[in-house]
Parts: sequence; C-alpha cells; structure tokens
Amino acid sequence: MPPEQTFTPPSEIDARIQGLQASLQQEGVDGALIVQNTDLFYFSGTIQQAHLYVPAEGPPLLMVRKSLERAQDESPLVNILPLPSPKKLPDIIDEHGLKPPAVLGMELDVLPANNYFAYRKIFPQSDIRDISVQIRTLRAVKSPYELDLIRQAAAFSDQIAGLMPNLLQPGMTEIELAGLVEAQARRLGHQGIARMRLFGAEMFYGHLMAGPSAAVPSFLASPTGGASVSPAVAQGAGFRKIQRNEPILLDYVFAWQGYISDHARIFSIGRLPRMLVEAHAHMLDVQEHVKKMATPGTTTGDLYEAAVEMAQEKGLAANFMGAGDDRIRFIGHGVGLEVDEFPFLAKGQKTKLQEGMTIALEPKMIFPGKGVVGIENTHVVTPAGLRQLTRAEEQIVTV
Amino acid sequence: MPPEQTFTPPSEIDARIQGLQASLQQEGVDGALIVQNTDLFYFSGTIQQAHLYVPAEGPPLLMVRKSLERAQDESPLVNILPLPSPKKLPDIIDEHGLKPPAVLGMELDVLPANNYFAYRKIFPQSDIRDISVQIRTLRAVKSPYELDLIRQAAAFSDQIAGLMPNLLQPGMTEIELAGLVEAQARRLGHQGIARMRLFGAEMFYGHLMAGPSAAVPSFLASPTGGASVSPAVAQGAGFRKIQRNEPILLDYVFAWQGYISDHARIFSIGRLPRMLVEAHAHMLDVQEHVKKMATPGTTTGDLYEAAVEMAQEKGLAANFMGAGDDRIRFIGHGVGLEVDEFPFLAKGQKTKLQEGMTIALEPKMIFPGKGVVGIENTHVVTPAGLRQLTRAEEQIVTV
Repeated sequence: MPPEQTFTPPSEIDARIQGLQASLQQEGVDGALIVQNTDLFYFSGTIQQAHLYVPAEGPPLLMVRKSLERAQDESPLVNILPLPSPKKLPDIIDEHGLKPPAVLGMELDVLPANNYFAYRKIFPQSDIRDISVQIRTLRAVKSPYELDLIRQAAAFSDQIAGLMPNLLQPGMTEIELAGLVEAQARRLGHQGIARMRLFGAEMFYGHLMAGPSAAVPSFLASPTGGASVSPAVAQGAGFRKIQRNEPILLDYVFAWQGYISDHARIFSIGRLPRMLVEAHAHMLDVQEHVKKMATPGTTTGDLYEAAVEMAQEKGLAANFMGAGDDRIRFIGHGVGLEVDEFPFLAKGQKTKLQEGMTIALEPKMIFPGKGVVGIENTHVVTPAGLRQLTRAEEQIVTV
Repeated sequence: MPPEQTFTPPSEIDARIQGLQASLQQEGVDGALIVQNTDLFYFSGTIQQAHLYVPAEGPPLLMVRKSLERAQDESPLVNILPLPSPKKLPDIIDEHGLKPPAVLGMELDVLPANNYFAYRKIFPQSDIRDISVQIRTLRAVKSPYELDLIRQAAAFSDQIAGLMPNLLQPGMTEIELAGLVEAQARRLGHQGIARMRLFGAEMFYGHLMAGPSAAVPSFLASPTGGASVSPAVAQGAGFRKIQRNEPILLDYVFAWQGYISDHARIFSIGRLPRMLVEAHAHMLDVQEHVKKMATPGTTTGDLYEAAVEMAQEKGLAANFMGAGDDRIRFIGHGVGLEVDEFPFLAKGQKTKLQEGMTIALEPKMIFPGKGVVGIENTHVVTPAGLRQLTRAEEQIVTV
C-alpha cells in the first residue's frame, strides 16, 4: 500500500487562525493578507493562487484565482470564494461585513516590492505593515499534529541514512550517488521541494559531497557548500569521483507532507585520518552539551556561545562552522514547513526557547582540502532539553 | 570521464554588461544594483552573497560577502571586492570614482519589500526604479554560447525520454517512477534546481503523472498540475499507481550548467482510447503550425490566437491548455536560466519574436478524469521559424 496525502484537520487550522488573530490584536493590526505559499498552506491547508484574508476578529476569507476547486477540496476553511482579480479584494472584504483594514498586515519579508506597490494601490486607505516576524514566531512552536509529521519525516531520514552503505561505491561521482539516494527518498514519498524563506536562499535536497569538494564554501548561510555541478547552482553534489579514505557527507532534508527533517551523517570507504575522526567525535560532544542546555527559557545566542567555547577549548575554533572568512555564526536553526525557520541558534540572538520548537542542530568542522565532519539532527525542545528525532548511527560509518 | 563545470567566458560577460549599460543609458538609469541569484550569474558568472553594481558607463563592481574566494574563482570580472555590510555600498561606489546614482535600477519584481526599504535607507538620495523588464528583455535573446548550452540540455532531455520505456512498470507509483527518472537525470549532470522568477512559482523537475492524476489542476501558471504527494506541494507526481491504458505524462526540465530545456512526451502501457490519440495528433499539428508562423517579428499574442483557433476548429477548445476555469491563456514561454523567461506566447501579448529567443512551446489537452496528452519542445527562433532542439519521438510511445 503506498502512503496517502495528509490533509490538515479543521481543528489545526482553527488553532492557527486563532493564534494569528491574537497576535494581530496585540499589534493593532486590523487584518492580515496572506499570499506566500508556505503561509497559505499553514493557515488554510491549501496552496493555490490565492489570498487569505484574516481579520483580527471573525472568520477568514480564502479568495482563489486558481484552482478554486482544489482549494475547496483541500482546505477546511468555510469561506472559500473565487477571486477574479486582486483589485476585487476590498469589495469582497466589504461584502462579507468586514470593515476596511486601517492597518493591513502582509508578509513583507518575501513579498516583492512591485507586488507591494500594487497592494498599496488596491488598499489606498490602509497602512501596510510587515507581520512576517509574528507569523514566523507563531509557526516556530509546533502542535502535536505537526510534531507527528516531523517525526515521520525524521524516520524517513533515518531510512535514507541506513541505505547509504548499500548505494556507495568507490569511483562513482557525487552526483551519481546523489541521484540514487534521491530516488530512494522519492520512493518513500519525499515531496521534492524544500522551501527556504530568506531572499536568495535555495536548496535541492541538501549537500552530498566527499572529501575536498564538501569543504568548498557557498553563498548559502550554511557551514557547507559544495563544488557542485556548475557555478550556476554553486552548492551540493558535483562531478568529482568519490575516493577511499575521505569523509562523505550526507546532509539532506526529508520533506514529508510539507514538513522537513534535517540531518547529516558521515560515511567513508576505508578509514579516515585520525584528525578527522577526533574532530567528528568532538562535534558529537558539542551536540550532547547543547542538547542538555537547550531547555525552555534558554537564550538561543547562549547556546551558540557554548558551542563555540567547546570548539575553542579543543583548538578547533578556526574550522568550526566554516573556515576563515566563510565561517558562519550559528549552530542550528528551526525547521518545519521551511528549512530556515525560527529560532536561530546564532550569535547575539535573544530569542528564548519554547517547548515544541523544532531545531536542526548542526555542529560541523570544515577542513579545506580535506573535507567535512560533524553531525546534524532534528530535535524538539522539551523540559528535559532537546529530544532527538533523527536517530541513525552517529559514528562515522565505514563501508 | 565525468563532465565538467562550465565557467562563463569573459567575452560573454562583457557583452552582457554592455547590453545592460546600453539599456540603462537609454532609460536614464545611472547604475544597476543586481542582487538576485539568476541575474548575478548572468552578469557576473558567479552566485554568491553579493551585490553587482553596474554603472551606466565604466567597469562594474562585484562586492561579495560570502564567498569572496569562490566569486574570484568563478567570475571573469576584474573588480571583485569584499563587502562587510550592504551599508558600505555607497562608500565603495564612491571610492571607485563613480558618482552616486541619482536613479538606481534594481530587480523590484523579485526583491522583497523589506529589502527594498533597507536599500532606500542605504541610498537615501537615489530614486530606486525597477529594471526587471530591461534585464528580462536582454536575457530573452540568447548568445551562441548560451544556445550551445541549451542544445546540450535538450540532448539530455532526449536521453531521459529515451530511457522512460525501460523504467516504466505497471503498478509502480508515479513518485517511484519519478525517482528513477530523476536518478538518471542526476547521473547525466542535472543541476537539480530549476529557477522560476514569478512570485510563488516553483518547480521540482516538472510534472510526471499518469491518467486522472495528470489532469488535476494546480496553482501554477501551467496547463498541468498533478495530484502530487501532498497539498503542501500541490503539483507533480503522487502516490497513485500507474495503470494500463492511460496516458503517462513526462513533462520535465533538464537544467544543465544553469540552462534549461523543457519538454513533454506521452507514454502508455497498452493502447489509449481513440479520443486521446486523436487529441494528441492534433496537438502535434498545432505545434507544426506555430513553428512555421513563429519567425522574427511575429507578435507572440498572435501565435497564441492561432493555436486557440486550431483547437476550436477541431472542437477541442474546452480542454485546450486546461479545463474549465483552470484553463491558462498561453501556449508557450521563454526558457533559459529560468523556466519562466520572456517572451510569453500568451493572450494579448504584444512582444515581437527575435532571432535567438528560446521558447518552450507546449500545446496540451487536459481531460479531467482521463489524463493529459500533447507535446512540449524547446525551440530557438530563426528566420525560418522555430528550430526544434528537443527531438525525442513525438508520437505516443506504447510500451
């Protein structure tokens, strides 16, 4: 029996809309107009060419250009209407007995400037304000329903890591191995697309590279980059043949029913130099330390500093989370419907952890000319610290 | 021997910069600040966390946050400098003897509103204007160098279509088949990421679906959608098992060294109903008609109307390019570094074809409950009409 699609239950959508409305009321925003794919899915259960209007009080309106029928099939919302043109938005809001929003919240972190100008013309009386931080803050804490899906994604990640030793052959190119791993992921139901929110950030499964290729930096806010197949993508697997005695990094997300699990494991054909083995072991120690510290109420910036301090004590700081000027100043990030969710375990961050946040913690060492070692797991914040959801073997797997 | 990365040659970058500068001068724009990945790659040959400043006259400055070293390796530009913070942009421009831009061109079709506000603070004296149409118009006409890469991508598309009969088995799920096809594409060097420019548009290889699943519409400006694995992605392959006697649509892009070839072919296990076979044959006729009409100087909107007229004559208009309210009003689009490039062969479009434009022409028939038939190929505009670059068998391939 193949698996089936999961439709977001009505109670889940209700709770999310209520959360958004509480936030709108607190901020003095009269209504939110949601247009970005991920947020549309989160608040309505469907992704269409659509505008979701959520008044600070009262039922939301999902106004759809294409496909109305699909929106009606997938979304548990009650008011799902056709939208012939965005110019009709104020009229439809009015026809539903809602007053025009004096303050209109939008996702100005992702909405293109030209689109913003167009909405200013459509809502000339409204003060359009960014509500992306409110939305991202809300989304950072996962419901039991969401945690269940992330747990399923994590179990698929573990399966993929478990299959690696069977797929790996010396002399195959990174990209060939990537294709075999990805085919297994698709068979299990990987949705393909893994969304990132930050402008310019993009990812295709993640990073699968070996030896020196893995240590090539990229534009991404990530410790790893990858030589890749082309400067046009500039990250991920490339044409280099995998050799014996070099670390092979599998750092892939599994995207399942919208939700992402992020994990990294190290493999090798034959033994690795002692220096890399020791650095890997130390990253496991950093992970254990941060897991214990990361209880609700802990400041995310403090977790970053604790990890850097541990790397410094071992004399590893110069290669921790990147080398030279390409070092990045974080050790983990939220995951959920997007790869780069709140919170960021990063330098100077003041956000405090909350129970139910899901975090990809990724202490890694980057050695130019040699390769990458370290670990990444997806965890949920609990009163006892981080509970790890991805559970495949964490030691370097030698085949 | 595995293939190798292609670095954009200096002469190519020079010509592109000159093209942009001519356009800036014509529009009275003093300088362009390029920040989007695809445009960065087009004008500099590298994608980094970078700002490319192109003055209306004089050499451009590529200012890089991460990775400077990679930018220097990949880009043939002369002035490649570190950029500690975007706030330093005006100073660096000044230090290079360039006057502050009174009119500054940016990619306001993709730049998020919050980022736009930040650049307004960084350049308080500048009038920031959208130059995305100028950039897209420039990019629409391909150089011989670019056409060569698109030809290579098209040859890979043909290989993938040729492999389909070996991969296809009755009873396998769409997503399982997708994984096998994608693994072959990766082995050949498919870069994975296929970029789209329109806000909210996204694609993962394309659409591989069978029978009724293929006819499920989506949010995408595309004739096809797909039941998919989840409402969170809402397009592409899903968990449905492929049956005998239903059309199997392979509509995939091949992305090679940045450049995209887009093609669609129909397969079946056993024979298809006569109605579908006839509709497919008619789409091939539409393709031939449009190919001959599409000479330099032809108005793109006229090509759309000609295709619709042919569908009407056969009584097929109600299912041409979609069914019911989900019909889309185009028959083709430019392809290159992005899937949705200029020109659009769409209702009302006044753009005239130019020699060297590359176009994915995709006359398709969507029958809800039955499936999709039709064709898509990537072509280049020549004085004799469209020259077809993807050349795999166009008849329905029965296995």
